Formats: sequence, C-alpha cells, structure tokens
Amino acid sequence: MGWTRKDLLTIAELDAAEIVTLLDTAASLQEIAGRDIKKVPALRGKTVVNLFYENSTRTRTSFEIAGKWLSADVVNFSVLGSSAEKGESFIDTAKNIAAMSPDVVVVRHSSAGAATLLARELPCAIVNAGDGAHEHPTQALLDLLTIREHKDRFEGLSVAIVGDVAHSRVARSNIHGMRKLGMSVTVAGPPTLIPPFVGELGVKVSHRLEEAIRDVDVIMMLRLQQERMVGGLIPSLREYSRYWGLTLDRLRSHAREDVLIMHPGPVNRGVELSPEVADGPYSVILDQVAKGVAVRMGVLLLLAGPRTGKGA
Amino acid sequence: MGWTRKDLLTIAELDAAEIVTLLDTAASLQEIAGRDIKKVPALRGKTVVNLFYENSTRTRTSFEIAGKWLSADVVNFSVLGSSAEKGESFIDTAKNIAAMSPDVVVVRHSSAGAATLLARELPCAIVNAGDGAHEHPTQALLDLLTIREHKDRFEGLSVAIVGDVAHSRVARSNIHGMRKLGMSVTVAGPPTLIPPFVGELGVKVSHRLEEAIRDVDVIMMLRLQQERMVGGLIPSLREYSRYWGLTLDRLRSHAREDVLIMHPGPVNRGVELSPEVADGPYSVILDQVAKGVAVRMGVLLLLAGPRTGKGA
Amino acid sequence: MGWTRKDLLTIAELDAAEIVTLLDTAASLQEIAGRDIKKVPALRGKTVVNLFYENSTRTRTSFEIAGKWLSADVVNFSVLGSSAEKGESFIDTAKNIAAMSPDVVVVRHSSAGAATLLARELPCAIVNAGDGAHEHPTQALLDLLTIREHKDRFEGLSVAIVGDVAHSRVARSNIHGMRKLGMSVTVAGPPTLIPPFVGELGVKVSHRLEEAIRDVDVIMMLRLQQERMVGGLIPSLREYSRYWGLTLDRLRSHAREDVLIMHPGPVNRGVELSPEVADGPYSVILDQVAKGVAVRMGVLLLLAGPRTGKGA
Repeated sequence: MGWTRKDLLTIAELDAAEIVTLLDTAASLQEIAGRDIKKVPALRGKTVVNLFYENSTRTRTSFEIAGKWLSADVVNFSVLGSSAEKGESFIDTAKNIAAMSPDVVVVRHSSAGAATLLARELPCAIVNAGDGAHEHPTQALLDLLTIREHKDRFEGLSVAIVGDVAHSRVARSNIHGMRKLGMSVTVAGPPTLIPPFVGELGVKVSHRLEEAIRDVDVIMMLRLQQERMVGGLIPSLREYSRYWGLTLDRLRSHAREDVLIMHPGPVNRGVELSPEVADGPYSVILDQVAKGVAVRMGVLLLLAGPRTGKGA
Repeated sequence: MGWTRKDLLTIAELDAAEIVTLLDTAASLQEIAGRDIKKVPALRGKTVVNLFYENSTRTRTSFEIAGKWLSADVVNFSVLGSSAEKGESFIDTAKNIAAMSPDVVVVRHSSAGAATLLARELPCAIVNAGDGAHEHPTQALLDLLTIREHKDRFEGLSVAIVGDVAHSRVARSNIHGMRKLGMSVTVAGPPTLIPPFVGELGVKVSHRLEEAIRDVDVIMMLRLQQERMVGGLIPSLREYSRYWGLTLDRLRSHAREDVLIMHPGPVNRGVELSPEVADGPYSVILDQVAKGVAVRMGVLLLLAGPRTGKGA
Repeated sequence: MGWTRKDLLTIAELDAAEIVTLLDTAASLQEIAGRDIKKVPALRGKTVVNLFYENSTRTRTSFEIAGKWLSADVVNFSVLGSSAEKGESFIDTAKNIAAMSPDVVVVRHSSAGAATLLARELPCAIVNAGDGAHEHPTQALLDLLTIREHKDRFEGLSVAIVGDVAHSRVARSNIHGMRKLGMSVTVAGPPTLIPPFVGELGVKVSHRLEEAIRDVDVIMMLRLQQERMVGGLIPSLREYSRYWGLTLDRLRSHAREDVLIMHPGPVNRGVELSPEVADGPYSVILDQVAKGVAVRMGVLLLLAGPRTGKGA
C-alpha cells in the first residue's frame, strides 16, 4: 500500500491499510538504531521544524533524532522565548515558519485541532505531535508497533486502557487505531476520568481495575496528571493509587501471564504504576520509547521522502 | 563587485555597490528554497554561532536554516540560562565563544553598538542581527530584495515608513539603504515616535498617515511595541490604531493601486495593520520572510565562503 | 596506550597513562580548529546527547562543537521544560534517552555521583560534564593540556589552586590529575572554603595568597560563587577580593615571571581576578577554552570512535 496523504494529523482519519503502511515503514527502519553508523541519506536536503507550544523534550528529541538519522536538517522552534510571546497568533507564527520552506512541520499545541488548522493553511507536511486532549498519532503508532512485535498480530487482541482516559490524547489515538485493526478495547478509570460518550468509539467501560485487566493481552496505563487532583476530579493521589495503581500483587492476581504492560511516559512511580511493575518483566515501556524513533523516521520518510506521491 | 569586509554590522557604513553585491548574492541563492534537495556544500566545515541576547526565535531560525542549507554547523547560544546570568560580561562571553573558533558569530543584543564592539574584539566574522534601536541590516536587505523583485528597480521609488520610527532598528537600517539606492523616504507617526533629527538622514517627515501613504510605491508599517504605551509615548493602542492603523479603507482611499505593503513582523493584527491588509493582495509580508533566508545565506556565504577576500 | 573504558566519569579513577592517552588524543585533534574545513568524518552516524540539568551554555556549546566537527549528530536535551519538571526521576529520564540509542550521553547534574549512576544503568558511553561538587574531568583535562603545551612537562611542576576549593569540582578533578602526573599542589583560600581533609589528597594548604603563589609554575584561580556569601562562608565580596583577589601588583611582587594564570571561567572580574591579570600576558584563560573543544573531541572519539576497544 502506498501513502498519499500530505499530513499525519489523526489516527481517526486513517484506514487500517494506511496504519499498516506506517507500521511497516517504521519496522523496516528499526534496524538503523542498531547499526554502527546510524545514518541514511533518505531526507538529505529536507528541513524539519519542530514547532512545540508545550514542553515535551522527550517527544521533540525523538523527532529530532529520527530526522537526523535520515539526514534531514532539523530546527527546533520552541515557543518559550519566541514571537508568540509578543502576541503573534499561532497561525501567523506558523505561516512565517512555512515561508522559510520547511518540508515538514511537527507541531505540538495545547489546543485540539491545532495541527489540522496548520495542515489546511500551510503547503508543507504537518505532523501532529499532540494537540490538546485530541490526538497524538505517533504515540499510538509506536504503541501499535510494540504490540505487533510482541504479539505478532492485532486481530482478536484485547486491551485495557486505564486511568485518565478523558484527558488523554494517547488513549484517543490508540482507541481509534486498535479498533480499526480489530482489537477489542476496554477503558477503565474512575467515572470522573472516563469521557461520557466513549462507548460510541466501540469500547467497553469498566470502573474496576481488577475487572478491566482480567484476561486482556495488553494493559496500557495512562499517566495521571497531577492537575486533575487540583481540578477536583480525583480526591487524592493516594486514593487514586489505592484503587487504580497497578501493583505486582494486582497484576499476579488478575492479569494473564503473558500480558504486556505499556505506558506512554513519563511514569509517576507509585501512582499509576508501582516501580516493580514499571521495571518488571511484563513492562515494555522502554521498548515503546525505542520504537518511537523508528515510527517518527517512518512518518518523516513517508511525508517527505522520495517518490511518496504526497500531494500528487 | 567583490566583498572585502570581515563583518556585516550596519547598512550605514556600506556603499550602494556593496548593498547590491549582498542583494545579488542573496538573489542567486533564492532558488535553493525551491529545490527538492535544499543543500549546497558551500560552508561545509564552517561553524556559525547564533549568540542571542534577546528573544527572537524567528530571526534565529532564519539564520539557522540559512546556515544549514549551506552545510555549515550551526550552534545556538542563547543567553537565558548561560554564564551571562552568572555575571559574566558580554565581551567575556563573546571572547569565550570566539576561542572555540567559530567562523561567524551572529549576534542580537539590546544595546546599540554591541555587534560593532564584537567585530573589533573578535577575529571571526560578526553579523549584526539587531543591536538595540540601532541597526538590523539583514532585515533591511531582505526588505530591499523584496522591493527589487516586485518593482525591478530602486532609483526613484518612494517609500513611507510608518509607526514607531524612533525605536526601530528596522527603520534606521532601511532608511540608510533606501537613500543610498536612490529612493525617497517619508517617515510618519505621532510626534512622540519620530526621532528629533531624522531629517538629517535625508527623509521627509509626516504626522498624518493619509498624507504619508499618498502616491508612494511602498508602505512599510512598523510593529508597535506594546511597551511604548506603558512608557506614555502613546495614549492607548485603540487611539494609536484609530490614527495610525492601516485599514483596507484607508489604503483604497489614499494609496496607489500597485503599492506594496511591508511589515517586519510579528504583526499586531488590528493595531498597526488590519487583518484584511496584512493578508491582502498588496501585502508581501510572507515574501519578506522567505527572502530573509536567502539574504542570510548570502551574508554567511560572503563572510565565510571560499575566495571572498575577507580580511585579505 | 589504548583506551578501554566505556565512560569518562572521574579523573580519580584514571591512571597516569590513561590521562596521557586522553591528552595525546586531544592534542592530535587540536589542529582541526585551525583548518579551513573544520570537519572530520570520525563520528559520522554516531549520536551524542547533551543531558544538562544545570545551566551551562559554555560547556554544552563546547561539547556540541566538538561533536559536530567530528560529524556526530548532537542533540541537546535541556531539563528546563522537560519531563523532569513533570516529576519524572533523573534515572527514568536517562533511561528514556538511552532507549533512543545514543552512543554518548554527556551529563551535567547538581548531584555528586549522577554520572556514575548513569554509567552503571545505561549501555551507552557516559561523559561526566560536572556532577555537583564532585568532579569535572574534561575541565581538568583541558587545564592539563594547557599546562603541558606551555611548560612541556608535568613532573616537578608546582601549582597553586586558589579560592573556593571546598565547593569546586574543577579543583577536585585537577588535584587528582596533577598528583597522578607528578605535580605538587597547594590549595589556598580562607579556612571556610578549604575542605577539612584535603591534605589526604596529597596537597599542601595555605591560608595566605602571597605565600601560596610564591615560586609556583601555575596559579589556578577559582570562580567565587556569589552564593557563598549568602551562605555566610565569606563576609563580603569586597573583603574576599581584598585578601584573595589576584592583582597585577600581587602577581609582580610574589609570583614567578613565567607563571601561568588559569581560570575555569566565567571570571568574576574584580573579585578573584583583576581585569589586568585576566587579560594580561600571564593569562591563558582563552587558551583553556580553545583546548576545551579539542579535549571534548578527544573524549568523544575515544568513547565512540572506531576500534577503541570500548566495552570489549
């Protein structure tokens, strides 16, 4: 399957074949990380701008390494200390960057729809690196790639996504991707952290951790943003952890022996995950990070590489 | 015409032939932005340091992209979080950087004369990327390149520069360049924002927008720094905008049909420019940004490239 | 002599032959700074991550330039604005970076032992770029390289290290290196700034500047951190300067004619060094900075270059 889109904005708009194309491309690039010389000329002479309106050194670094291994020029445009602070609008800043002829703009922004807005206004390829509580497609892709490598298939697998589903772009992107690929998804968390109409996305809802993680192939724990407590959505970290923290005990009592434990990072140790689980044999958290570079290489290559048919 | 200077510090010290050399070099590099592979080896093995004491992600990014397209190593040295905060003097910091053998140091600083000071003290090439309210030569060069491409000449053209002329290094650099190239310049703004002896630079002064923009070939609107209001130089943004904001209405009533609207960015929409004018057919604002990369490539190439005769 | 270590963590753990290997490697790379094309392909396809938990644009820039001249991909991971601010632990952040397959992580951290911790946990090479008041090995190496180039030997040379020895990782790394190479070291400063058992490192202690600098080959002045005054360790900058500031007068009255004046920078002019001394003929301060790039090239090359036998 070829790739014909100009941008990567959401998983929701992709069909299963497009997702598989992205995963296959990433998988084929994975071995570069193990090479003695981690450099291929695929994007030589291409310019990638990381336009980040939220702090995320990890995701930015992952895109930066991916771009550099492909020989692209990578420029970081952080908004702290930029014209945006002088009152310039988001779209004006982005148009200014686009006027400098980048091939790809990777954008992270606190507003849902920010990447889609840029894609409509700018001629270059846009990669959504997280837009508010909407989507974070490269995170879902690296999660899916991790699952495929460990389970060798998607069809028929079951996943529990646990925690602050309501505010999680990671959960949203994954739900779309998993459903399209034939996986069954249960979301679990306290009622205040589960979005009201989530069932319409084709997922089951659970309000008990022990129930949600029983017999699933994959448990994806979400990061609990400490702001949620301030907002009154959970009574305390301690109480959240007591009911929703994944401990080795709970895992052994309720989950399958071959379950995968995933987390998008950064982990709140002792809140959503006990250290023994985060570092334990079920955990593939650092594997997810490694696959993140491969996924971002794949995305950059499909959007800016030779003969991709983009925009054609 | 060759180029013999070690540095690019001001437009004031250049003669018309030197300005034309800079513009011609930039113009010849412009097509790189449209190439499939935006990379030429001209500055391979050269090191460019962006030494920025003021926030300006846009200008810094423009220089960074220019350097990278020329295959230079570009290093960003931002002063936020640097030794300068530990009390080290500007010149000590700069000498330390120079000891690391860069070929070019691009400097932005809030003090007029900062770049000239470095040029005297350091052996490497210095590019002034804005020094206080003094000069911003690469901005003037990109403005001039934009005008030349749209009007095919300089001699005999007339320009109105409108707004906070007193605090604008963009205005100062442009006035010098435009006068040297045979253009006539009118500066316009409320009396508090027009410097007292500006007439000595060979420009006319107007205190009415409608009068200033009548029959000129180019209108250059300046950014109104919101600090000016705090400083008591203007009564309010609303009042400033009422008298000095360029609206479509005013433009149609008083300006020529083929007038160019320019702005150094970032634009305060609704203050000095109405959105309809900023995005309208007369506006070449994003064209200026695109030419900025070409101008910076040209400057870096003349100062650090092969056989330029610099310092010889 | 070959190099077999995976990491560069401390000078304390190196033997004299290893130090000389590092210095010889750096010395052989020094001429690159003077080339027309400052670029060798030694680390092409290698990735260096600068993981800085303390502000130090100078040291970071030195490593960045060193890496780029060797053709490595260099990625800056600053902690301001990173996940570390979201409560992630140091080791979790580092493991995440390591999962992206860098070849070298250069780490600066306010805690002694931070680099050693990473070296134990991560498979990639770790370079200690300063850990608390513990060690700063590349600074000591550049100091030693500077001394060797000016004095042509180490054996039998005498050095005075003056100032806040107690809090100085620069002093600690240098004391270890100088002793191993056969130099005699005197540390000097007010009693509150000299660590209690420093004599066990094989150094003499002096509490008078005039006495300490008499007849030594090298005077290394340390930076006085202004925080020390707040902490009550010195009564005032003025008083510190009166007793411990190195002026031209003192230098001429008490020091040898061929003494070298060194300082790790940034200099507090008028506090520990008078401007005449900092800029005078005895001073090799900027030479130290230049050698810093060569030393960091040498370290990166030995840790990540071809056929180094690292980890073998």
